[in-house]
This record gives sequence, C-alpha cells and structure tokens, in this order.
Amino acid sequence: MVSISVYLFFVLTMKTRMNQDIEQQTAMYREAKEAPDYVRWQLDSNKGPISELAADLRREKPTLIVICARGSSGNAAVYAKYLIETQLKIPVLLSSPSISSIYTAKQNYVGHVVFLAISQSGQSPDLLMATRSARDSGAKIISIVNDTKSPLANTSDVVIPICAGVEKSVAATKTFICTLSAIINLVAEWRQNDELLRELTTLPALLKTAYAKDWREGLNKLMNVTNLFVVSRGLALGVAQEAALKLKETCGIHAEAFSAAEIKHGPMAIVQKGFLVFIYSPQDQSQESINDMAVAFLERGAQVLSVGQHYQHALNLESTVTCSPPLRPLLFIQSFYKFANALSLARGYNPDSPPHLNKITETI
Amino acid sequence: MVSISVYLFFVLTMKTRMNQDIEQQTAMYREAKEAPDYVRWQLDSNKGPISELAADLRREKPTLIVICARGSSGNAAVYAKYLIETQLKIPVLLSSPSISSIYTAKQNYVGHVVFLAISQSGQSPDLLMATRSARDSGAKIISIVNDTKSPLANTSDVVIPICAGVEKSVAATKTFICTLSAIINLVAEWRQNDELLRELTTLPALLKTAYAKDWREGLNKLMNVTNLFVVSRGLALGVAQEAALKLKETCGIHAEAFSAAEIKHGPMAIVQKGFLVFIYSPQDQSQESINDMAVAFLERGAQVLSVGQHYQHALNLESTVTCSPPLRPLLFIQSFYKFANALSLARGYNPDSPPHLNKITETI
Repeated sequence: MVSISVYLFFVLTMKTRMNQDIEQQTAMYREAKEAPDYVRWQLDSNKGPISELAADLRREKPTLIVICARGSSGNAAVYAKYLIETQLKIPVLLSSPSISSIYTAKQNYVGHVVFLAISQSGQSPDLLMATRSARDSGAKIISIVNDTKSPLANTSDVVIPICAGVEKSVAATKTFICTLSAIINLVAEWRQNDELLRELTTLPALLKTAYAKDWREGLNKLMNVTNLFVVSRGLALGVAQEAALKLKETCGIHAEAFSAAEIKHGPMAIVQKGFLVFIYSPQDQSQESINDMAVAFLERGAQVLSVGQHYQHALNLESTVTCSPPLRPLLFIQSFYKFANALSLARGYNPDSPPHLNKITETI
Repeated sequence: MVSISVYLFFVLTMKTRMNQDIEQQTAMYREAKEAPDYVRWQLDSNKGPISELAADLRREKPTLIVICARGSSGNAAVYAKYLIETQLKIPVLLSSPSISSIYTAKQNYVGHVVFLAISQSGQSPDLLMATRSARDSGAKIISIVNDTKSPLANTSDVVIPICAGVEKSVAATKTFICTLSAIINLVAEWRQNDELLRELTTLPALLKTAYAKDWREGLNKLMNVTNLFVVSRGLALGVAQEAALKLKETCGIHAEAFSAAEIKHGPMAIVQKGFLVFIYSPQDQSQESINDMAVAFLERGAQVLSVGQHYQHALNLESTVTCSPPLRPLLFIQSFYKFANALSLARGYNPDSPPHLNKITETI
C-alpha cells in the first residue's frame, strides 16, 4: 500500500514537472514572464518625457479625455477610464472607432480634449481614422503604442512608448501589462501622486511575485467547461475583461466578464447549479458588492473559482494584495497569464497561435 | 402513405397552433405586442415638451452628453450613443455608475454637459447617486424614465416619460422599444431632422409588421444550444446586446454580443465548426464588415442564423428594412422579442419570471 502511494506520488510529481517544462516553452509563458523587466525599462526610459507631458497637461487642463482602442488595448482603456475618473476626476469617453471609420461622423470637440489612442501595433485602419478625425477636430493626440514607428505614432502629438519589446505570441501579455503601467505612470505624474509614483517603482518586484503564484489546482475545474463568467468591478473590471478575452483566445472557453453590479441586471439568471464563475476580488470599495454576488452564486450551487478573497465552498486561489488598489489588477492578470497558458496547453490548444487570429488585427 | 402525410401535417399544424396559443398567454408576448400602441401614445403626448426641450438644447449647445443606465436601459444607451454621435456630432460618454456610488469621485464637468439618465423604474441607488453627483457638478439632468413619480424623475431638470404603461414581465420589452423611440424623437427634434420626424410617425405601423414576422423555423436551431454570439454593428449594436441579454434572462442561453469589428480582435477564435452565431444586418454602412464576418464563419462550418441579409448555408429569417437606418434596429428587436418568448417556453422557461431576477434591480 505504501509502495503504491509512493509510486503514485512519484508519477504525479513527474507528470506535473513534465507539464511545467512544456508550459515554459511557449512564447506566451516567456513573454508574460518578461513583463516585470520591461515595466522596469519603461519606467526608467519614460520618466522624463511623461513628467514633461504631465506638466503640460496640468497647464492645459483638459476637460474631456477620449480613449480609442480595441481588443486587449480596449481592456486597458477600461482600466484607464476608472483610474483617470477616480484619480483625476476628468470624464473619460470610450470611443467607438466606427463613428469615424464607417459613419464618417466627425465629432465636435469643444474645449481642451485629449484623444488617447492605445495600440500594440499602431496599425488598425479604424483606429487611425478615428485618430485623424480627432486631430482634425482639434484634440491633442497622445498614443500609447508599442511600435513607435507605426502610422499611429506618426499621427500623434505625443507618443508614450509601451517599451515591451517584440511580442511574438498572438495573445498579448507583456504589452497589456506594460500598457497598464504606462497609464498608471501618466496618471500618477499628472496628479503628482508621489505615493503612487513611489509604489510604481516596486511594481516589477510585485509582478515577479505574482508570476510565481501557482494556480494549478484551478486547471481541473476549467478542463471541460464550455462557458463561464468572470466577475469583478470598478478598477479591476478591465483585467476581468482581459481574462475573459484570453480564455476565449487561448483556451476555447466562452468567458464573458461582468461587473458585480451589471450582472444583477439580467445576466445572473443563467448562473445556476454547476455554472462556473471566476471571481476576482481587488479588495477595494467594490468588495462588498462582489462578496454579495459570490455568496449568492455559492448558495445556488454555482462553482466559484476565487482569487483575492476566501469563500467557503469555493476553490480559493492565492493572490498578492500587498499594494494599493491601482496596482492590484496588474498582479492579478500577471498570475492569470501563467494560468491561461497552462490551461490552454492542458485543453489541447497552442496559446501562441489561436485559431483564425493574426498578431496584427486590422479592422475598418 | 398519403394518409400518413396528411395525419402528420395535421398533427404538426395542431401542435404549432397549440404552441402559439400558449406563447400568446405570457405577459412578455402581450407587452411586446403593445409596444406600437405605446410608441404612438408617447409620440403624441411628448410632442410639445420634446420640441421645447430640443429648442433649449439647440440654444444651450451642450459640448458633452453623459449617459447613465444599466441592463436593458444600458443597451438603449449604446443605441443613443451611436445615434447622437452620427446625427448631432456631440461626443457621448457612457458613464460607470460605480465612479459615483462606490468610489465617490465627483467628476469635473466643464462647459455645458447634459447628463441623460435612462431607467424603467428610476429607483436604482447607484443611478441616483451618479445623477445627484452630476447635478452637483453643474450638468443639466434629463431623464428618460417610465415611472414619472420615481426618485430619478424627481432629481431631473427635465423628464421624458417613456409612456410604456405598466410592465409586469421581468424581461423588459415595450419599455425598451419606447425608450428607443423617445431617443429618436429627441435627437430628430434637436437636429430638426424633418425626414426622421416624419418617418417616426410611421414607426407604430412598422413595429406591428415586425411583430407579425414569424421566426419559428429558428427555434429548433436554438433548442439545445448552451452559448452563442450575437453579431451586428454600429447603430444596431445596442439591440444586438439587448437580444443577447434576453437570451440569457429568458432562455438560459449564454449569448454575448459583439460588433463585427471587435469580434475580430480575439473573440472569434472560439467560432469553430458548429458554433452558433446570430447575425443581424441593419443594411447600413456597417454591412460590408458584417458580411465579411458572416462569410468567414460559414466557411469554417459555424451555424449562422441571419436576420436582414441572405447568406448561403445560413438559416435566413425574414426582416423589415423599409425604413431608414435609425429605425431598423427597433424593428429587429420587436420581431426578436416574439421569438425569444417562444424560445423561452420551448426550452421550458417562464419568460415572465426568469430565475433569480426581480423587476426592479437595485445596485450600489
């Protein structure tokens, strides 16, 4: 009996090690792991320019910030909206590129408007059309872009380089995290929030800790699932959307993200016994509403995979919250990327080249 | 052989008739059917006040419109954003209520800002907090609300009554359609778009034609499906979102809506052979991008249920397009409500009381 247990333990340990070896060979794994180093590089190399830009913006006092982005950059834009509106109290409009690209309706911008375009490649035609249209309407164009020689960079008044290096995996990882750190950097300099600026210098180390987290015990729960909800709120909604997008792209799971408030206005009707809900708790002011939903879902027998808060009868995964709320979503998504890469392989997918997708998506 | 055929035909006809009888007994069926009459009543009774409000708005020249809404009203807000930005060229910001309700971050509104709150009940605390915060920031508060004695109505400078009467079914139908007609009415008066105003008077008749459409042949396709995408774009994106929400609420289907552009930036990876996509073609400037996606999905063996455009190998359902683009989404959703009601019953649900939902949703 003892010898069988020892044998089984040995086999399982070997299997886990072999899986870990395979997982570490994907570009997605490597690139997500590189995020902390690129964040450090970005913070060093953007310091002067962002500080100057922030001084200009404090002088110019924009009355409206329009953000234009799609895909993972669109999820970063949602994070930016919450961060700017809570930190700077300037209203943020998430723009629909089709208004410019297919309806050719140039918006009337009155006062000082900043148009912030976010893109890894800086090449999608609809984003470019929206940016040119905003420039013609008198907006100041700032772009957060990884390819600083792209058409988008050339159309901008100010370019904030994402500094994430080359990203080969179709699934964005380090570019997403570096986009968020660039957003925090800009907002913290703009608001002269020294505490946040100081904390930002610790982000690379925090991200490394987050990438060391092992959520392997969550793999089984998601091995055979077709669809699920990712629930969070507020500052963390953007990363919940990013997690849902990654589950679609790399794991073939139909995951949809909701805020803990919006889900009550209808969608939660389909959360029945056995339905899987992935909940991320950022432990900020939104936590009470997230707890309410988690408890309600557990009471009706839903399967809950929880990060950031311990719930009875849920599968609770470890997270890092030793930092202020603006940084926490970045640590969640850093841990999540490692998990999504492993899950993708476990479900028989190649995380680096999802079906039917290209690295650069061009839409009109 | 002939007698068996005759017998089968008789049985099937009887079964369809019996199903139709049952379908017509739900509040959802009756209330959706009433929409055209309430639209007519609304257009008559709001004519003077909306014309006055429009004259004021032309004089005041708002520089930004902020819309706050959740659930079905949130889907109406998405429609409003596209209609206002294409017709009036004034930027529209979709507000996140949590910024006011849980983060208590009052936004700095500079210039003439209109804050448009949309709600059936006018009671959700987060919507009220966001509205009060906007009022304190100097915005002009306009509400589109069904309950004109609600706290939201009392907090508004101008109330546009939805005039949809009492809605008993938890699933919003006539209140959604009447909200869209109120939005069109306001925008058409504001822009002094006489053609659109003239066409609006024909909307009740068009809606009646739309409700007579029979999409019964689509029921089988959706009888056993767990999850699907609803795809459209631009002016029709809001009703695609509303259709997805209704499939969740009333039919237990995990349906998610995407624009034909956004879906290319990742989500389409899960559209494989057999995956069901419900496509709505509004036949406006967005049609080319929708066609591209439909053809790509059909080529990879996805099941396509199409409304508004005929595709080979798709199940094509009849629609009404004998009107200008702004009105078309209303006709789509009017037909869709009848379909969702029938599908709900066919799948064993009660469309009038979805699991875990109340008619008035209160979130903070």
